[in-house]
Amino acid sequence: MDVTGLYGFEEPAVPECNVTIYNEFVHERRNEAVGRLYPEGIHGAIGNYLKQDGFTVRYATLEMPEHGLTEEVLGATDVLIWWGHVAHGKVDDAIVDRVQSRILNGMGLIVLHSGHLSKIFRRMMGTSCGLCWREAAERERLWVVNPNHEITAGLGRYIELPNAEMYGEQFDVPEPDELLFISWFEGGEVFRSGAVWHRGRGRIFYFRPGHEAYPIYYNREILRVIANGVRWARFRGNTETSGIEVCPNITEPLERIEDKGIEFAEIEHPGSR
Amino acid sequence: MDVTGLYGFEEPAVPECNVTIYNEFVHERRNEAVGRLYPEGIHGAIGNYLKQDGFTVRYATLEMPEHGLTEEVLGATDVLIWWGHVAHGKVDDAIVDRVQSRILNGMGLIVLHSGHLSKIFRRMMGTSCGLCWREAAERERLWVVNPNHEITAGLGRYIELPNAEMYGEQFDVPEPDELLFISWFEGGEVFRSGAVWHRGRGRIFYFRPGHEAYPIYYNREILRVIANGVRWARFRGNTETSGIEVCPNITEPLERIEDKGIEFAEIEHPGSR
Amino acid sequence: MDVTGLYGFEEPAVPECNVTIYNEFVHERRNEAVGRLYPEGIHGAIGNYLKQDGFTVRYATLEMPEHGLTEEVLGATDVLIWWGHVAHGKVDDAIVDRVQSRILNGMGLIVLHSGHLSKIFRRMMGTSCGLCWREAAERERLWVVNPNHEITAGLGRYIELPNAEMYGEQFDVPEPDELLFISWFEGGEVFRSGAVWHRGRGRIFYFRPGHEAYPIYYNREILRVIANGVRWARFRGNTETSGIEVCPNITEPLERIEDKGIEFAEIEHPGSR
Amino acid sequence: MDVTGLYGFEEPAVPECNVTIYNEFVHERRNEAVGRLYPEGIHGAIGNYLKQDGFTVRYATLEMPEHGLTEEVLGATDVLIWWGHVAHGKVDDAIVDRVQSRILNGMGLIVLHSGHLSKIFRRMMGTSCGLCWREAAERERLWVVNPNHEITAGLGRYIELPNAEMYGEQFDVPEPDELLFISWFEGGEVFRSGAVWHRGRGRIFYFRPGHEAYPIYYNREILRVIANGVRWARFRGNTETSGIEVCPNITEPLERIEDKGIEFAEIEHPGSR
Repeated sequence: MDVTGLYGFEEPAVPECNVTIYNEFVHERRNEAVGRLYPEGIHGAIGNYLKQDGFTVRYATLEMPEHGLTEEVLGATDVLIWWGHVAHGKVDDAIVDRVQSRILNGMGLIVLHSGHLSKIFRRMMGTSCGLCWREAAERERLWVVNPNHEITAGLGRYIELPNAEMYGEQFDVPEPDELLFISWFEGGEVFRSGAVWHRGRGRIFYFRPGHEAYPIYYNREILRVIANGVRWARFRGNTETSGIEVCPNITEPLERIEDKGIEFAEIEHPGSR
Repeated sequence: MDVTGLYGFEEPAVPECNVTIYNEFVHERRNEAVGRLYPEGIHGAIGNYLKQDGFTVRYATLEMPEHGLTEEVLGATDVLIWWGHVAHGKVDDAIVDRVQSRILNGMGLIVLHSGHLSKIFRRMMGTSCGLCWREAAERERLWVVNPNHEITAGLGRYIELPNAEMYGEQFDVPEPDELLFISWFEGGEVFRSGAVWHRGRGRIFYFRPGHEAYPIYYNREILRVIANGVRWARFRGNTETSGIEVCPNITEPLERIEDKGIEFAEIEHPGSR
Repeated sequence: MDVTGLYGFEEPAVPECNVTIYNEFVHERRNEAVGRLYPEGIHGAIGNYLKQDGFTVRYATLEMPEHGLTEEVLGATDVLIWWGHVAHGKVDDAIVDRVQSRILNGMGLIVLHSGHLSKIFRRMMGTSCGLCWREAAERERLWVVNPNHEITAGLGRYIELPNAEMYGEQFDVPEPDELLFISWFEGGEVFRSGAVWHRGRGRIFYFRPGHEAYPIYYNREILRVIANGVRWARFRGNTETSGIEVCPNITEPLERIEDKGIEFAEIEHPGSR
Repeated sequence: MDVTGLYGFEEPAVPECNVTIYNEFVHERRNEAVGRLYPEGIHGAIGNYLKQDGFTVRYATLEMPEHGLTEEVLGATDVLIWWGHVAHGKVDDAIVDRVQSRILNGMGLIVLHSGHLSKIFRRMMGTSCGLCWREAAERERLWVVNPNHEITAGLGRYIELPNAEMYGEQFDVPEPDELLFISWFEGGEVFRSGAVWHRGRGRIFYFRPGHEAYPIYYNREILRVIANGVRWARFRGNTETSGIEVCPNITEPLERIEDKGIEFAEIEHPGSR
């Protein structure tokens, strides 16, 4: 695919958009081949591109205190990118609670590749997020199926990757709010490789490509999609709606309510409300 | 609203449809007025109607061992109805995991009224499920907005309730797969009172009406909607798709994959896959 | 794929479900090879299966008066199946108006294969319904992506067709209400091959397989999906909602409206309301 | 509702965004009261605000040649706003075809109030777009139900209008891609007052408020929503996807297709493909 001039279309990065990239950062340090491929870690490969594109980038890894995802860091993060694979189970549930709460209050989330089984993605989806897979260096072609979405802006009809791990249907996620990419695999399967969901005030983008053993996070079309995803996932909505993690008792009605002479039973209410 | 002949339309109950009704069963025993209103418990009021409609009904309450929701009971349940209010926090997380797993594998779930804050509904939605509320015995009118859904079958343009607790927007749930009812409240608010979502092989229906202090679960239109909901929520799909809570490694491709001479790095895989 | 026992699961046909199959019926009479393949026409091949499955079947073809789609026939039709290819332009616009009106009032519509460019499908979708295509006898594999839908009931993980015309993305239709099948093609493309939409009181199912030059409408898995589609598309909703092709003026409010002393300008209203 | 500082949040207008406002412009000239309310026409009231907000604005009215919607004008339009009421039937079908084609190729469409019955909206939706209505100067409250959408940016929990025509459910449109506003009416009805749909490369926003006899198009919250709508509806997607109003024959596959020795029947293809 000819991508000449592809980068000429890019919208300017949103002013002062703060991105935090979480990478469990295990493979790169344990496995020599992976270490050579991603000497600065998968987070570094993605972060270097995003910095050039004008974003402010911070990193977080499993072994940092609180996995690098403190209240302070999350409070200053517009969009969180998540990569994990072998260490999903080591992520502290209290940190997952905190990330979920921050998403519901407006932080965007981009989940990459094997992050489909991360605690945070399963928490946000409510499903197992399972799928089928095969590692056989097969050709993948990601077809664009949604022609008017910020995330596919500037792409052609498809992105082709010469060698990729296969992910196949049935992918156990809720029906996406918008389906963006469907992958064709050399070995005979298909997969919904790019899709978005809204949860509370947060926007979530799952994007399949990427693997520790392939140089996919150096592919400029893939990086461009991730950057488009960051632009899209940033909060731009309505900050005054209630209902997000609180259940306010609105005792004063907006309209007069007819007095029907009903005496209320003294019913207790849960303290949590 | 004239409901003459309303029950003439009903589809025959699905053969051998097993319904389990979970009720925390706290208000009815603690509060005399509620006890008089629901002498057999809220579960009894709903269950009596469903039995007449041909369903096989079982009850589960908070204080039963495992809240009445053993592996055996859930395995034999087609649709689970959930009512809770003051004791959401007392439901054991391990039972919530079990119910979630059973839903993802095909059990239907109907969540009523204050069940919006139950652990299981929040788990399935991924959001806070918060809303605004007011207890002022106000008039509610549930407008049907979806004209071709099993759950609204046989209804008129709306259901009117003379006295109801108010629930108001913004309701923090994912955009419904299908929105069925929108409520108008005397005090000035609106609410998405009936909506459905799909999660894994499970179907979920949230239905707002009902409160421990009002005789709403004796209203035949409300009961009819619940019965319609049970019919709709029962599994009828495809039992052979993979991906539900497992991640099978499909080592044999369906098509020949070209040998590209790539030697794989010896990458470890998570045991959970 | 082993389909042993596949047909054992089938739900009983809905009592007295009337299906009308429209086939333009041109290829079968003009082309000898097609005529040998479908001696009773494509409509006959599909109709014979549906009759065995308990449905009442009627046929309509382009050359019949009013294309066989009179007010009387449509009024007695629960679900209309549509196959056309070379003669879309010859279908009378007044008949298209009539079919649209009947769908909005509760008739189901199943559009097969090249029917994607029919006037009625484009009318219901509002889009061009364009796609890419290639005729090269290539292998197609339809993956089930929705595990709890009546239309995929009883199927395995996929349906495989040895020789098929290719249809490729981007398919210009509105985002489906539910996506059921995604096709993989030998030549490298993917396609959203089965999807459903709701319009008014009508249910619409588009299903890709089928071509005049391949014996696809004798494949029992394909026929089973069509029969499942008929069961699903039949109306079962709410017959009393207003708003379908009428705009009633509700002069009497349900609640008292405060008199604000406003004198209305004498504004004309369109006669059509 | 306090809107102090409301306009401080506004995103900068998109550079060189060209808006065309179509107004049938009948009521303002025929009816003295309406003429006094909108001396520059409804289009002028909306256009004056949009100009101040940085947009380039052009007007089109029914009586202009080609209703002001020539190929040249549409080709230079990013977003088209549509207001009509008594003269829907006078809009030329050929112009409707042209507008539809331009939307499918990337022009945004904003339909206001009684435009729900316009030919172009019905064309894009595929449904009757009917609803119930009443003219009684009643209070309307538009509740925001989607907290992270560009169109609701900067608003509070609701917008209140003291006097409005009522529109009530059931509103016969396809289930929205995203539901943004639900209206509460003093007289007892509810309505889905703000919603968006995608069609081809075009984005469509329907927004209920506005009437020739009320000064609603001078309300700054309403105007802000319209301006947000223009920003959102502008094309920003993928210009290279095929399938939009063409059906290309992709004779060269991307992958090698096994020769199965099949001889194709000489089947004719429709000229339109």
